Amino acid sequence: MFYHDKKLQYKVRVEKPNPQFARALQQAIGGIEGEIRVCLQYLFQAWNSRGPQRYRDMLLDTGTEEMAHVELLVTAVAMNLEGASSGLVDEIIGNNTMMKEVMGGMDPRHFLSGGLGAMAADANGVPFNGSWVVSSGNIAADMYANVMAESTGRALATRLYELTDDAGMKDMLSFLIARDTMHQNQWLAVLEELGHGDMRNVHPIPNSFPQDKEAKEFSYVFVNTNIDPDEPSIGQNRRWTQGQSIDGKSQFREEKAKPYGQEPKLGPPAAEGHAQVEQLQHAGEKV
Amino acid sequence: MFYHDKKLQYKVRVEKPNPQFARALQQAIGGIEGEIRVCLQYLFQAWNSRGPQRYRDMLLDTGTEEMAHVELLVTAVAMNLEGASSGLVDEIIGNNTMMKEVMGGMDPRHFLSGGLGAMAADANGVPFNGSWVVSSGNIAADMYANVMAESTGRALATRLYELTDDAGMKDMLSFLIARDTMHQNQWLAVLEELGHGDMRNVHPIPNSFPQDKEAKEFSYVFVNTNIDPDEPSIGQNRRWTQGQSIDGKSQFREEKAKPYGQEPKLGPPAAEGHAQVEQLQHAGEKV
Amino acid sequence: MFYHDKKLQYKVRVEKPNPQFARALQQAIGGIEGEIRVCLQYLFQAWNSRGPQRYRDMLLDTGTEEMAHVELLVTAVAMNLEGASSGLVDEIIGNNTMMKEVMGGMDPRHFLSGGLGAMAADANGVPFNGSWVVSSGNIAADMYANVMAESTGRALATRLYELTDDAGMKDMLSFLIARDTMHQNQWLAVLEELGHGDMRNVHPIPNSFPQDKEAKEFSYVFVNTNIDPDEPSIGQNRRWTQGQSIDGKSQFREEKAKPYGQEPKLGPPAAEGHAQVEQLQHAGEKV
Amino acid sequence: MFYHDKKLQYKVRVEKPNPQFARALQQAIGGIEGEIRVCLQYLFQAWNSRGPQRYRDMLLDTGTEEMAHVELLVTAVAMNLEGASSGLVDEIIGNNTMMKEVMGGMDPRHFLSGGLGAMAADANGVPFNGSWVVSSGNIAADMYANVMAESTGRALATRLYELTDDAGMKDMLSFLIARDTMHQNQWLAVLEELGHGDMRNVHPIPNSFPQDKEAKEFSYVFVNTNIDPDEPSIGQNRRWTQGQSIDGKSQFREEKAKPYGQEPKLGPPAAEGHAQVEQLQHAGEKV
Amino acid sequence: MFYHDKKLQYKVRVEKPNPQFARALQQAIGGIEGEIRVCLQYLFQAWNSRGPQRYRDMLLDTGTEEMAHVELLVTAVAMNLEGASSGLVDEIIGNNTMMKEVMGGMDPRHFLSGGLGAMAADANGVPFNGSWVVSSGNIAADMYANVMAESTGRALATRLYELTDDAGMKDMLSFLIARDTMHQNQWLAVLEELGHGDMRNVHPIPNSFPQDKEAKEFSYVFVNTNIDPDEPSIGQNRRWTQGQSIDGKSQFREEKAKPYGQEPKLGPPAAEGHAQVEQLQHAGEKV
Amino acid sequence: MFYHDKKLQYKVRVEKPNPQFARALQQAIGGIEGEIRVCLQYLFQAWNSRGPQRYRDMLLDTGTEEMAHVELLVTAVAMNLEGASSGLVDEIIGNNTMMKEVMGGMDPRHFLSGGLGAMAADANGVPFNGSWVVSSGNIAADMYANVMAESTGRALATRLYELTDDAGMKDMLSFLIARDTMHQNQWLAVLEELGHGDMRNVHPIPNSFPQDKEAKEFSYVFVNTNIDPDEPSIGQNRRWTQGQSIDGKSQFREEKAKPYGQEPKLGPPAAEGHAQVEQLQHAGEKV
Repeated sequence: MFYHDKKLQYKVRVEKPNPQFARALQQAIGGIEGEIRVCLQYLFQAWNSRGPQRYRDMLLDTGTEEMAHVELLVTAVAMNLEGASSGLVDEIIGNNTMMKEVMGGMDPRHFLSGGLGAMAADANGVPFNGSWVVSSGNIAADMYANVMAESTGRALATRLYELTDDAGMKDMLSFLIARDTMHQNQWLAVLEELGHGDMRNVHPIPNSFPQDKEAKEFSYVFVNTNIDPDEPSIGQNRRWTQGQSIDGKSQFREEKAKPYGQEPKLGPPAAEGHAQVEQLQHAGEKV
Repeated sequence: MFYHDKKLQYKVRVEKPNPQFARALQQAIGGIEGEIRVCLQYLFQAWNSRGPQRYRDMLLDTGTEEMAHVELLVTAVAMNLEGASSGLVDEIIGNNTMMKEVMGGMDPRHFLSGGLGAMAADANGVPFNGSWVVSSGNIAADMYANVMAESTGRALATRLYELTDDAGMKDMLSFLIARDTMHQNQWLAVLEELGHGDMRNVHPIPNSFPQDKEAKEFSYVFVNTNIDPDEPSIGQNRRWTQGQSIDGKSQFREEKAKPYGQEPKLGPPAAEGHAQVEQLQHAGEKV
Repeated sequence: MFYHDKKLQYKVRVEKPNPQFARALQQAIGGIEGEIRVCLQYLFQAWNSRGPQRYRDMLLDTGTEEMAHVELLVTAVAMNLEGASSGLVDEIIGNNTMMKEVMGGMDPRHFLSGGLGAMAADANGVPFNGSWVVSSGNIAADMYANVMAESTGRALATRLYELTDDAGMKDMLSFLIARDTMHQNQWLAVLEELGHGDMRNVHPIPNSFPQDKEAKEFSYVFVNTNIDPDEPSIGQNRRWTQGQSIDGKSQFREEKAKPYGQEPKLGPPAAEGHAQVEQLQHAGEKV
Repeated sequence: MFYHDKKLQYKVRVEKPNPQFARALQQAIGGIEGEIRVCLQYLFQAWNSRGPQRYRDMLLDTGTEEMAHVELLVTAVAMNLEGASSGLVDEIIGNNTMMKEVMGGMDPRHFLSGGLGAMAADANGVPFNGSWVVSSGNIAADMYANVMAESTGRALATRLYELTDDAGMKDMLSFLIARDTMHQNQWLAVLEELGHGDMRNVHPIPNSFPQDKEAKEFSYVFVNTNIDPDEPSIGQNRRWTQGQSIDGKSQFREEKAKPYGQEPKLGPPAAEGHAQVEQLQHAGEKV
Repeated sequence: MFYHDKKLQYKVRVEKPNPQFARALQQAIGGIEGEIRVCLQYLFQAWNSRGPQRYRDMLLDTGTEEMAHVELLVTAVAMNLEGASSGLVDEIIGNNTMMKEVMGGMDPRHFLSGGLGAMAADANGVPFNGSWVVSSGNIAADMYANVMAESTGRALATRLYELTDDAGMKDMLSFLIARDTMHQNQWLAVLEELGHGDMRNVHPIPNSFPQDKEAKEFSYVFVNTNIDPDEPSIGQNRRWTQGQSIDGKSQFREEKAKPYGQEPKLGPPAAEGHAQVEQLQHAGEKV
Repeated sequence: MFYHDKKLQYKVRVEKPNPQFARALQQAIGGIEGEIRVCLQYLFQAWNSRGPQRYRDMLLDTGTEEMAHVELLVTAVAMNLEGASSGLVDEIIGNNTMMKEVMGGMDPRHFLSGGLGAMAADANGVPFNGSWVVSSGNIAADMYANVMAESTGRALATRLYELTDDAGMKDMLSFLIARDTMHQNQWLAVLEELGHGDMRNVHPIPNSFPQDKEAKEFSYVFVNTNIDPDEPSIGQNRRWTQGQSIDGKSQFREEKAKPYGQEPKLGPPAAEGHAQVEQLQHAGEKV
């Protein structure tokens, strides 16, 4: 079962909201290479697991972590959409040319359906599709599905990194890229244990992104999200919790999951989005 | 962010595996009225929330709980599919009539794609679709979306209850029906606070299912899944944590989330599903 | 069975065609909170109804009305797309920068696939999906599904209202918003009859849109679309045809359906859309 | 705009309910060759029409008729599902073999999601998809899309006819097959007017179904669903309202739309479907 | 079975890359009227064919040709996307207004998911859907489905032709338009053989596109893609290989398939797309 | 561009048609792990390739081969469906119990929509979805996507092998399993060249299927489908055309593509499927 903490796994800051970037971020939420997919994929693989036990445990830990990544990205989308609210009405009413620019690049459903909120969809508004959740009953096939998801996911994250010059967004993405590095290492570690090759000196995919731009302190840490007090889940000596990382670039270590970010505070609803009056009046209040 | 416990929120027992019932249970996992939908819907509503704060907190608590319900149901599907494995080959090879029966009622992808595991799809194998996740930016509209989801969801659970005479499955469903009772009450409580009517004496939908068949000890408990040690999240005196329940049938109370079930143990993989040799050899081992 | 009148239920005028606004309007046609969904949802609920009779009758009446709303919106899209046709070729051939602007904001399929016509899709071109049509067999669950559809639908209509300063479009939307007010009242009236609370003084959702901007003369009228001469369908004394409205703001009344608009006349096809020669030559002719 | 009559366009009788046949009928409701598709396709083509006027009028007439066909088929599904209700619980609880048969052949969502009602989906439960609604802006391309829809639709109807020996169902299908004959003739008539060939002596597709099994009195009648009192819509002398039919087999004639069936009365809800108590108690009442 | 040649069926040249046009071209790849659909549709009709033999053969020939058209269009998309790569980072980092223009009109997934490559999706990024592949078991119904596909497909191609002033793109489209002319003639020829009318003097749809803009040398040629040395597949005297074309405008002839284009050479990957280092370093090399 | 041969790449024989097995085979045609997906995935990766050249060439060769696999499977489905035609009418009319069995296990659309033909859909009738076609612009990510596709695809093929005792079907599947062995080796060979590990002694996934049941003579052969006479495409000394196979079990060799099967001959159409009369009369004729 599952628990949560209102604090985020990592900081989400947006210096200058950008609704177009919000649209691009949707790919990492609801796209085929996005975080809802990996969250559900790892959890379904865990829940369907018929052994060995240690792989089930690991999949539960990481599937749970991925839900925190969805949270980071949805928060980032909501923050970037705040750029769509200031003066939206004026811009549109006063000048149809402006509407072309505003509506041209942002996802219109972010305003029309979400009232400036994120959706379970990709960068084109195509909904998340459960067919992408692969749980095959064969652990090696599943691990290749996972490496593939993290490889295309890390490629996506590096492309998002290139698309923005917002320092807050680059910081958040450097964390997500680092976690993708770890997760690629994890799945390869299972494959190695299963006799699927020797992966030493393999750089995480894509290998053209300089690792010094990722948040390296998170690149080789197995995040243990298990809080069962009855189980000494730390220190069980797994291939992915200690020893040299699969890619040979560092040492694995294990850490109990904890928030590096704060509880997010979004701005108030935009008037033209027609939230309830009670939301508009009490948006900033603590209770 | 999120954490997990390997124990289940409630017991999952299957006395006599039934692959046809596994297919029916898929509707409660990946169908439009299923648990993946409510899990993501409540979490997206929380993450997109621009206030008031107490609704965001409540949505996070309950969205997190719903993920545990997906876990219960996936486990139940996997256990029911064990009925498909014993002697599957013999049945099919020896007698095409048997194949009609075995393949006719079960979802063929449970074997072909899942190796006897659950999928993120409905009872017809139609994949979960992210368009069902409603987060409108208007709290009252969202609450009606939530009442609707829990009403159709509770109707589904009572129909599944009628479809089985397996005592373990009836027990699990009595828990899920009780939780749907609570969640209907919760969303109506928010609507009441927002001035949307007086809902006293309203029976949870459907009102034709006898409440003495639901696990009543869970029917009016707000499950608090927040484990942040910095926050006194229990005892904040909300409309849904104390006082008379909205339907007037009981008193609300609040409880810190905890497992009432155990860590699940699925049977070993079926030989004809062609898991890896390492899975077949080490399925029952602890590590 | 069904009949039609070539005249529209309400006026559709576009003062200054705007292809970007055409794209936004698609959400109200083929989106999850759009009119195809409510049309089919109410009709399927009626057709599947096993009683009581009065709810079946009411659902048929309103489901039929919703098809007229699809017609209004498709007409509005087609009229707004006429802005895409004048000089389209020159703009594109002469200046790629212009293409960015024209194609950036409009739905490219409005031209490519529709030849400047509307589609059964949402504002991102994602097709209408039949899974959104909820007919659960439980009348209370269905009514909550209907309140939810009308709440998110009215929120959408108010957001579209904010996005345009075209007087014709604002007028059409003020009518649709008023009808959503009535329909929210209707479904709540059924819930009240079924013992689901006391909804007095509940403002239609969203309550932040000033009701004096809606076409109030249509806000509390039950539109009876039944033309069976054998049945005195007017004056049957239902909760939604007389007495105080559920929201306490007015009196319900009933009216036989009739057109307040005219038969629409779209402009001729754009040359670059390559209609048949016979269409281009005879577009304006009566026959 | 649109009106309705509670009576059906044609009789729907089911002598012996058959849930498996209900599943097959879904293909004609929500499948790619089904009636929702042609209804929306003809209406979108009409609404998007930029002339000539007479094609727009004809498309409106026939699109409106198709909605009545959806109604016939949904009613037929609901009636066939009544076979699933009698003793469903006993069958399932007492004997898992029976569950295989009951759940194996019927669509499980007809019970689980619909409470014994039809869905906007095909025979496999795959939802209706708006992408199938073709409105291209080119009248000849649209007419070929319509001939194709009616050809595959008539093939489907003849296959359904072969699958049942229920006299009521065969009667209903003989009507639908006849209407498909007329509609194929209509679209070919437009193509002929547009200079697209000479279609004399062309048998409706499929030509292997004996026309004496179709309800021939409806095979060459243009059904005029327009009830505008201001317009003499009958007797306008169109190629599809008088003269020899395109296939050379009969004479076209025109008829004002009228019901040949009665208002349908479905059986009461099945207890195990958990409708509301108010539905179960008042199912048979007039009001 | 199938074979390939690295050379293209026709030349693909892009004088000035235009990512917006790349997005529009996607409709002809993965849209409902696109080339993946006709490729699979003709091949499924052939593979499912139960005779007559000559139609099966013809469908195989043309289905195989259509795959070459997908190849032309994907190549054209990839070439047009090269406009998105030069200086993309600078534009975005330096100036958010530029990002609006670049991201507003192009498909963001062309960069985010494809690294400047085409997708199996339409102009809105909606994925290709297998439901569009019609193979009905009735040859006449299938032929109408094919005429419809080629009519809407040719309309699409002429609209794309209008949208560009790139001489290379116009040249490629003039070839595809010519092939659509031939394929419309082919399917009508089968209908004529089956007794479905006399199609003399019928202009290919749309008839408003001047045929002197199509590559007329390819407009009436049946392209025989069969390379089986055991079969004299040329010269079998079919209605679509010799004699007057169905539309009466020319003479049919038959030709063994051969490439009129060269092996395509795309530009190197854009640095910001984070291909592997090995791709970036060796992009231009022969091996 | 592409060519074809009417002969199949391998033999397709069905000793005893089995419509239920036809349904299961659909997963290998239109499912996420099916052959349409890998065909399009490899071709899109090739067409989008910006180098190195040798990977582009290899992807074209194998993507072309996969289309031949779709052909094998569609042929197998059509042959297995012949079991549904003999006496279908009698069975259904005479005995509703039989309809349960016939319609329960087979895909009803195989008869209703296909007239006993295959569809572009999975084993539940869910249509093929273009989102599954991964072409990321990063060669290593693409190769992992390919290994994953071939691993889940080979698992599927081995499960289908277990589901049938038809010697013809087992033979065909032994060929497809062997080709999946080769293709796993190929993609791993590219990864090895790119520095992604040492894969010696890795058994193809799943490793629990005994390789002596696969058609081993095809397990390590690179099938070269390129027929360009200008290019010496054989003998170019690639890692996947000579030397020890990646899994260390054999030697790679290369072979020009050629048919090992014959031109398929399906049985005549079933009368109740209502093909055209011309199909029924001339089904067996050569021309």
